[in-house]
Amino acid sequence: MAVPLTIVADPHDPAGRRTLAVAPGTTILKAAHAAGVDITATCGGRGRCTSCRVKFLAGLPPPPTIMDEVQLGDDLVRDGYRLACQCVLHEAVTVQPAPPLDERAFQILGAGPGVRQLGRVALDSGVAKQLVKVTVPREEHHQTSDLEQLLEAVGLTTADVGPSVVQGLPSALRDDPAGVTVTTFASGTASGGRQRILAVERGDTAVMKFGLAIDIGTTSVVTTLVELESGEQLASVSSLNPQTVFGGDLMSRIAFAQFNPGNLRKLHTRIIGLLNQHIEQICRESGVLAKWIYKVVVVGNTCMHHILLGIDPSHVGLAPYAPVMRHALTLSARELFLKVAPEARVCLLPLVAGFVGADAVGVALATRIYDSAEIRIAVDIGTNGEVLLGSRDRLWACSAPAGPALEGGQIRHGMRGALGAVDRVAVDDDIHVHTIGEVDALGICGSGIIDLLAGLLDRGVIDWTGLIQVDRRDALPPKLAERVVMRGEERQVIVLRPGEAGARQEIVLTQDDVRQVQLAKGAIASGVMMLQHVAGVPADRVAELMLAGGFGNYVSIESALRIGLIPPLPRERIRYVGNAASLGAQLCLVSEIERARAETVAARIEHVSLASHPDFEGIFVDCMNFPRGR
Amino acid sequence: MAVPLTIVADPHDPAGRRTLAVAPGTTILKAAHAAGVDITATCGGRGRCTSCRVKFLAGLPPPPTIMDEVQLGDDLVRDGYRLACQCVLHEAVTVQPAPPLDERAFQILGAGPGVRQLGRVALDSGVAKQLVKVTVPREEHHQTSDLEQLLEAVGLTTADVGPSVVQGLPSALRDDPAGVTVTTFASGTASGGRQRILAVERGDTAVMKFGLAIDIGTTSVVTTLVELESGEQLASVSSLNPQTVFGGDLMSRIAFAQFNPGNLRKLHTRIIGLLNQHIEQICRESGVLAKWIYKVVVVGNTCMHHILLGIDPSHVGLAPYAPVMRHALTLSARELFLKVAPEARVCLLPLVAGFVGADAVGVALATRIYDSAEIRIAVDIGTNGEVLLGSRDRLWACSAPAGPALEGGQIRHGMRGALGAVDRVAVDDDIHVHTIGEVDALGICGSGIIDLLAGLLDRGVIDWTGLIQVDRRDALPPKLAERVVMRGEERQVIVLRPGEAGARQEIVLTQDDVRQVQLAKGAIASGVMMLQHVAGVPADRVAELMLAGGFGNYVSIESALRIGLIPPLPRERIRYVGNAASLGAQLCLVSEIERARAETVAARIEHVSLASHPDFEGIFVDCMNFPRGR
Repeated sequence: MAVPLTIVADPHDPAGRRTLAVAPGTTILKAAHAAGVDITATCGGRGRCTSCRVKFLAGLPPPPTIMDEVQLGDDLVRDGYRLACQCVLHEAVTVQPAPPLDERAFQILGAGPGVRQLGRVALDSGVAKQLVKVTVPREEHHQTSDLEQLLEAVGLTTADVGPSVVQGLPSALRDDPAGVTVTTFASGTASGGRQRILAVERGDTAVMKFGLAIDIGTTSVVTTLVELESGEQLASVSSLNPQTVFGGDLMSRIAFAQFNPGNLRKLHTRIIGLLNQHIEQICRESGVLAKWIYKVVVVGNTCMHHILLGIDPSHVGLAPYAPVMRHALTLSARELFLKVAPEARVCLLPLVAGFVGADAVGVALATRIYDSAEIRIAVDIGTNGEVLLGSRDRLWACSAPAGPALEGGQIRHGMRGALGAVDRVAVDDDIHVHTIGEVDALGICGSGIIDLLAGLLDRGVIDWTGLIQVDRRDALPPKLAERVVMRGEERQVIVLRPGEAGARQEIVLTQDDVRQVQLAKGAIASGVMMLQHVAGVPADRVAELMLAGGFGNYVSIESALRIGLIPPLPRERIRYVGNAASLGAQLCLVSEIERARAETVAARIEHVSLASHPDFEGIFVDCMNFPRGR
Repeated sequence: MAVPLTIVADPHDPAGRRTLAVAPGTTILKAAHAAGVDITATCGGRGRCTSCRVKFLAGLPPPPTIMDEVQLGDDLVRDGYRLACQCVLHEAVTVQPAPPLDERAFQILGAGPGVRQLGRVALDSGVAKQLVKVTVPREEHHQTSDLEQLLEAVGLTTADVGPSVVQGLPSALRDDPAGVTVTTFASGTASGGRQRILAVERGDTAVMKFGLAIDIGTTSVVTTLVELESGEQLASVSSLNPQTVFGGDLMSRIAFAQFNPGNLRKLHTRIIGLLNQHIEQICRESGVLAKWIYKVVVVGNTCMHHILLGIDPSHVGLAPYAPVMRHALTLSARELFLKVAPEARVCLLPLVAGFVGADAVGVALATRIYDSAEIRIAVDIGTNGEVLLGSRDRLWACSAPAGPALEGGQIRHGMRGALGAVDRVAVDDDIHVHTIGEVDALGICGSGIIDLLAGLLDRGVIDWTGLIQVDRRDALPPKLAERVVMRGEERQVIVLRPGEAGARQEIVLTQDDVRQVQLAKGAIASGVMMLQHVAGVPADRVAELMLAGGFGNYVSIESALRIGLIPPLPRERIRYVGNAASLGAQLCLVSEIERARAETVAARIEHVSLASHPDFEGIFVDCMNFPRGR
């Protein structure tokens, strides 16, 4: 007998209700996902975060599991909250998933500065348009075809022509007396310079020539529209990767894909669907027609790359973490179902290893680290971060699987950088906060957590091992001391009490939260240290550390230094470089020379596998600790 | 107010009824086609044939139009028969379309002799399979990917790999300890011999290597399964081209495609659907798995070629009849939605002109006419026939649009070569007939009509201008004389009276039928004559005339000579060569050298445009007449 499960998106909207028939013994999360109802599960449904919490509106909530109690706390459990991943159904219930955050308010970093700011870029996208008049033969004796007449008009003897171009050819050639505009692509990397005809359009559209740079991150996706002739950025759209509902980090997502083949299809269609939404939005905002987009460059980590192509990433997640393919790939938009010009070239930059993807190659291109006389480091912070170290002589890279903690994931009261998130924290005799949008506080996001930890370290509330100093709170200023508490077995710092900064409920930092951040920052810091170790580069020989990524622009560099997220370099040697992965994609968009370079750079990058290095464990344990103070 | 139209496939089967709501003033044919109900309309719905006849089972038949009377005759009109293309609906009616003929009984010529009978063929299909063991790396330090390991195992440094191969790679490489079988294709025509990986299969399947030769004719489609290593034909399937319901000849079909863009899609999906039916059937009969088919070679006339690719053939049907493209094309089966190995290479042979297609190139290859020391002629008889003339020095071709009359179309009591068709006729003091399957006579097919005309010419029933000699019937033997009648304005020869040869109704040859055959045979004969004229080749310099095509094997050569369908050459210089177009496709299937040759041969063929030649009209008028007797 199936059990009815009613899911209510908004209690005030009768249309937002859906009732599912569920086999008894199924969890709410699995039942919802099976029926196509999205409930966010950042930790992949392992009871490690609060993102899948639901509130019971009708029916009896089951007894709380240990995970319900640890993650949600007594108050929420009493109020009828449960984790959807823990909650097994046995009778009819009605639940409301936690209201989704407003995606548009997310502080996901856009594309940042464009290629025009970089200088030194030879603008040659490979895409050329010309207006020609094609003579359609009038006499039957003339042995020819529409296509041959077209090639003659554009001065080619042979070319690759996609089926969608040929299909529209007869009417295009005959409908407009002004002639037709022919778009060709000469790949800088192909041998012999064979051309491809991408489009034949009625009339004169020669000045309309656009491209897209797409950066598919584990957590966020950024799409940038670029005018190919000038390299100018026209618009940028970013959103959460819609795959996050099936797992916040790569390993959860790979596990989801492994579970059954339909799941891979689900992940694949989600990302294609999102890219088409981006294309629609970016075209609407900019007034550019989608059919005028002839080139697309995509970067992303190996797992995102494989899923985009419909390749099962299961083995990327198993030792020895080998990718299925690594070479640069060019497809037609038609093959990938992207709604731009059907024959548009979609270029995927090459990969380096299972966890060092095309995004790292993009970072290398944008930072010019491959051409540096001095040794530099680039740190791309994200759920699946990467570290690059080197110069024109040698170049190393490793992955830094920080997980979502630095973005508020798997943190008791953590949230993404959205409206209502505590994003700045100062600690003196008390704790002072700033919220995004200066509205009532709902939770704390990554930059707030890092500020908070830096301040607590400075005040001695946390020691260098990360332990919350409940036993020594008497030494603290009274207001601060009152915030350091022991509840049951758990050490906590009360960041906000109900009413403070408009918080409706208490917002705390737990001992476990501190450990999560230690794991995350340990992953990044040990990645940097391991590369220095492997390359034999002490800190004083590092000319520059470049922070990149969707996270890097919002975190305070001082706080990051304080908690040891980045190595202790002089402040002036550290700088932001924006979303370097996307910028690398833009470079390849406007320059075929850069796209060819992506392959040589990818081949040069030496992948350092952290986990298999004998010295890694010691370094990682060291990096988990905090610096011992100023 | 819509009018209900009920269409009954079989009056004894209550399930075979469908009722449509039709706007008053619509013809039954249009209403049926709009609703997706197939009613054959060989002449394209112009009242020129009887194929779309329906019988009224309920409701009042409308007054017969002139076309109803001409095509159906008084008896059928009285019995409630009407042409669906003429019959405008105003009130509720129930009709039964003429029972469809049994397709399996059609005498459509199969593939005929295989390439093994040709000799002199270098068997090299370009498709190679090898069993390899791929070392999946065990150590993480090894910087590689599944694909790179595969390429190393097969000894390639680089190769084109389709997306569907990559998608299945990780599990294929890890699932079977026996290794994987890798299928590669080295195109004989590509520069540099770049290889393409077509498939990676678990275990050892190296001996399974098959291909398909497909001949898409206006009226019939023939698919042949070939073992690529030996060139052996394993099975052959043929059926009516399902597009015939939208027009029997090319011009009707082009007009249908022009009518609206949905119609092109309809024609396109019909042919793809049929090819997939063929693939399913041929695989079932032969026990070959569809995924073991790695190469497909397609021939067909220009219009069929364009429709297969989804290219609008409208302009092929308008002066100067230019094709949209002519070059040889290779696609993946995936792109064309053919259900063989997804990355199988589908090779379309090149075209010559708007009405001289890849089928003519196939005939040239199979007959070796391009390499002949002496001048030879190849006549490919079909609804859209072609004539080739030449030797190793020069080669000419023209189209011979015979129309469907020689296949029983647009003939009062004509039918295709199916069960019950009169296929052989002898005329002495009377008319004697043979029917296919020796069952009751239902109508007369092409070979029967040609025999009949030859006999009537010999007996003086028809004179050399084609006129039925009603006025001179007194000079004929009495039994024959009784068959020559004048009915109203129309001259007729009664071939069968009710009861004769089991005929349920009279079967007649009308004066108009004779004119239709004269047009058809005039088209072919004048094509041959024009090529001789343009090339300056008198009959005595023609070393051989080769009859090819789905029709050529069933007609009597003597009768064909008697009516002047082919020029008066000594009988021993005329021979059958079977379905040469399909044989040409098979050659290209098993030999990349032959496929490369197709391009040079196509480029060598000089297209002679009959209609625009100043001497054509005179020659055509001459050829419409019959030879003046022995």
